[in-house]
Amino acid sequence: MRDPPAILSPSVDWSSLTTSVARKAQDEDSILRKIADRFRSSSGQGLEKPIALGIGDDAALLRPKPGHELILTCDWFLEGTHFLRDKHPPHSVGWKCLARALSDVAAMGGIPRCFLLSLAFPETLTGRWLDLFLGGLRHASRKFRCSLAGGDTTRRNDILINITVVGEVRTGHAILRSGARPGDILFVSGRLGEAELGLQTIRRSKGMTSTKNALTRKHLYPEPRLALGQWLAQKGFSTAMIDLSDGLSTDLTRLCAASAVGSLLDQSKIPQVRFPDTSLRRSHDPLQLALHRGDDYELLFTVPPRKAKFLPRVFQGVRLTAIGKITPNRELLLLEKNGCSKQLAPGGWDLFRKKL
Amino acid sequence: MRDPPAILSPSVDWSSLTTSVARKAQDEDSILRKIADRFRSSSGQGLEKPIALGIGDDAALLRPKPGHELILTCDWFLEGTHFLRDKHPPHSVGWKCLARALSDVAAMGGIPRCFLLSLAFPETLTGRWLDLFLGGLRHASRKFRCSLAGGDTTRRNDILINITVVGEVRTGHAILRSGARPGDILFVSGRLGEAELGLQTIRRSKGMTSTKNALTRKHLYPEPRLALGQWLAQKGFSTAMIDLSDGLSTDLTRLCAASAVGSLLDQSKIPQVRFPDTSLRRSHDPLQLALHRGDDYELLFTVPPRKAKFLPRVFQGVRLTAIGKITPNRELLLLEKNGCSKQLAPGGWDLFRKKL
Repeated sequence: MRDPPAILSPSVDWSSLTTSVARKAQDEDSILRKIADRFRSSSGQGLEKPIALGIGDDAALLRPKPGHELILTCDWFLEGTHFLRDKHPPHSVGWKCLARALSDVAAMGGIPRCFLLSLAFPETLTGRWLDLFLGGLRHASRKFRCSLAGGDTTRRNDILINITVVGEVRTGHAILRSGARPGDILFVSGRLGEAELGLQTIRRSKGMTSTKNALTRKHLYPEPRLALGQWLAQKGFSTAMIDLSDGLSTDLTRLCAASAVGSLLDQSKIPQVRFPDTSLRRSHDPLQLALHRGDDYELLFTVPPRKAKFLPRVFQGVRLTAIGKITPNRELLLLEKNGCSKQLAPGGWDLFRKKL
Repeated sequence: MRDPPAILSPSVDWSSLTTSVARKAQDEDSILRKIADRFRSSSGQGLEKPIALGIGDDAALLRPKPGHELILTCDWFLEGTHFLRDKHPPHSVGWKCLARALSDVAAMGGIPRCFLLSLAFPETLTGRWLDLFLGGLRHASRKFRCSLAGGDTTRRNDILINITVVGEVRTGHAILRSGARPGDILFVSGRLGEAELGLQTIRRSKGMTSTKNALTRKHLYPEPRLALGQWLAQKGFSTAMIDLSDGLSTDLTRLCAASAVGSLLDQSKIPQVRFPDTSLRRSHDPLQLALHRGDDYELLFTVPPRKAKFLPRVFQGVRLTAIGKITPNRELLLLEKNGCSKQLAPGGWDLFRKKL
């Protein structure tokens, strides 16, 4: 038996880092070196879980924490489907591809551990675009304490990204979608519809979007609600949870179906977009944005009534709002401002129907 | 604290399996149902590690085996780069995308645990192509005892596949690339160059390739050497190991670089392709195929001389051949038939230079 390996050793496909004599692999080498350098230099700066990317191997090795389960999730992030090369700043593409995958870990109440990056892109983007992309990715990696453990790169005309995130959660403490019970109060974090408003602003704008525009910020730089998810799991407040990636109506339908329950949403309670000017207000219905548009990455969760009173109104700067309750019959109803309730059909994001 | 969850619960993006009311997600639903059905039906038939795919959640949950480390690897498998839609049978595409990712687990001496499937493809392929693809994927999943744990699907004009495999290995028993020492004997499994010969046969052929052609079999249906890798790790025979995905000259360069050693290959010992007819022999140099062509997924490993004599010549039907030895200086040399040795430069597969 050899000496115990490092907790994480990096994955095979980046092994050519070490093959400096490999003439044919020089192109790939320089890209892999760039990726490794970018992440290596961050490891000494206060990250709790540094990794050594210097030596490649066939796969990454991960030593699980005793008493914990692992959370596994993967996510496409594709040019033309999830982002546009000429509109979305590469720094935000790097941030968002990791942030949205981390949102699935948040929705289980988990702690991020590491991620794998699969990246395909044209040779023409190996300079500035790649630098900025890796800058955004590294920023998210450091902020959410999720280390790069390995990956795979290849050349392609389109930019293709796939992220696998590994998280961990104390055994038995993951919050599933299936635990909601009739009478539970339905809560949501943040405001809904802001990401869609940002996307529509980007669509109307000419050329590359500024990363400093407050309206587009939620679309370009979503924040996975990791601290909130972990706190809910730790405190045992929440019976069920899902992240809002595809819109409230669609994701609530999923949570209710998994729990075999229904729900009654109170329209007046749903935290909606606040418009900075009247022209935007005229062209958008904030309720429709909140109900049916995706990409917000807020958390939707259920809390039994006896525990709901202990929930703060604001958690680490993020509003928590009670927006309805779970009902025994499997219908989804929306209580309108006139006091009538109507059926709510899922109307969210569906990539098999809709493109950017 | 809720009841302990199943060892594996499936990933979020397939949660819409449960949203039968989601009108907008009907297309995706039917695809996800097809995938889940295909894999669900296999779980009762003798698989050691069945999973329940019936209920979706935000991510898959995996309970690690005590005393084991996890092996993580991801692999692109892209139309036009790694396979051609009109040449490669969809059944073999399904098999190969998983088999080649599993080869990285084999190269660490690991045991497959589960995989995530990220799949993007055009709506026009949701019928027969998808059925055959899933048939091949399921075949590999059952044969190599690696369960589907989750994934992500979306629509795309090209077929894009990314596979993440999770394996496990007893803590400290993974075979790395970095353990080779001067004097170690260099072994290889199987014959080298067969996959490239298969690819060239496919390129010359018209239309879809037959899955029954013996010449193309190694290219279409590679067999990750999992049993051999596990046996070597368990017996402690091997000091270093890598799988031959990019060709002997390139992968040997990587192993030597990781171990800070060199090697002397004996040309006459390298197990080469046997040609079924003279026309093929005229157009191909078997040594060049063996040295520089990839996709064989055989294992290249080093064994200390005192242990090498205990290694069988054939392991479960696969030949194990001593092809050279590890040297202290960092050169790679090839001993030719005339008794002279020359420098060996890596000449293998490089996707940043070369396409199908």
